[in-house]
Amino acid sequence: MPDTGALPYGILEPLPVGYETAVALAREELAGAGFGVLTEIDVRATLKRKLGAEFRPYVILGACNAPAAHRALSGELPVGLLLPCNVIVYAGDDPGTSVVAALDPVVLFGLTGRDDMAPMAAEVRTLLLQVLERVRERAAAPQPSAKGS
Amino acid sequence: MPDTGALPYGILEPLPVGYETAVALAREELAGAGFGVLTEIDVRATLKRKLGAEFRPYVILGACNAPAAHRALSGELPVGLLLPCNVIVYAGDDPGTSVVAALDPVVLFGLTGRDDMAPMAAEVRTLLLQVLERVRERAAAPQPSAKGS
Repeated sequence: MPDTGALPYGILEPLPVGYETAVALAREELAGAGFGVLTEIDVRATLKRKLGAEFRPYVILGACNAPAAHRALSGELPVGLLLPCNVIVYAGDDPGTSVVAALDPVVLFGLTGRDDMAPMAAEVRTLLLQVLERVRERAAAPQPSAKGS
Repeated sequence: MPDTGALPYGILEPLPVGYETAVALAREELAGAGFGVLTEIDVRATLKRKLGAEFRPYVILGACNAPAAHRALSGELPVGLLLPCNVIVYAGDDPGTSVVAALDPVVLFGLTGRDDMAPMAAEVRTLLLQVLERVRERAAAPQPSAKGS
């Protein structure tokens, strides 16, 4: 259960703020970078409902950069199997901590084996890295405006 | 734009039925195999709304086998980045045809580099192959009960 460091399929940022604040920051920064959140899975609620299992607060946000998605789908129809690009937020092991992470689109779209997908994937990766960087910076600063959600 | 044959990241079935029928069959067979559909993206409507672009009928269904997801998440927290497992349906090039496809969980979870994820991924793959097989069989037969959606 890595809370820090490299993840072969994603980019992970531990945050010194609680879950609700982290989710709010992630939503704000995704929107600011032009990502729509098209899907949302409350993992804890889903596991509770389906299995009666307890789990930590955890959300999967399906983020979509529409122009990039359109280019990808126009190049290869079935590539919707790889969309949207997930950003997750979950509560950390210690109170007042959380983790935000983004799927690495370069790794994911590498599965297509198509070189012509690489520039699109790299662009989305750059945007997602900026989102995580902004979330990290804001989480490290006092955040009077961050709303829980 | 492969409409048949191998896809490096998924399993694809061309169907001799229209889009609405194919979506209904996919939903029924996913449910029958124990998959919940946790998310749903109407690709055509989304591209129209966000970009004003025209696109063929296309849906991305986020399918989740809850016990498998729970095992995966309990083994590696950030693996929610790879969930849910997408099943797509889109209209074919010819009227009265469509394509259903599923992301290959063995390929996807191979990105984790963790051997202990492989049995879970293989089980989900087997279930998804059964779903596609059932959809293919039903699409090839008269389907008085298939509902459009």
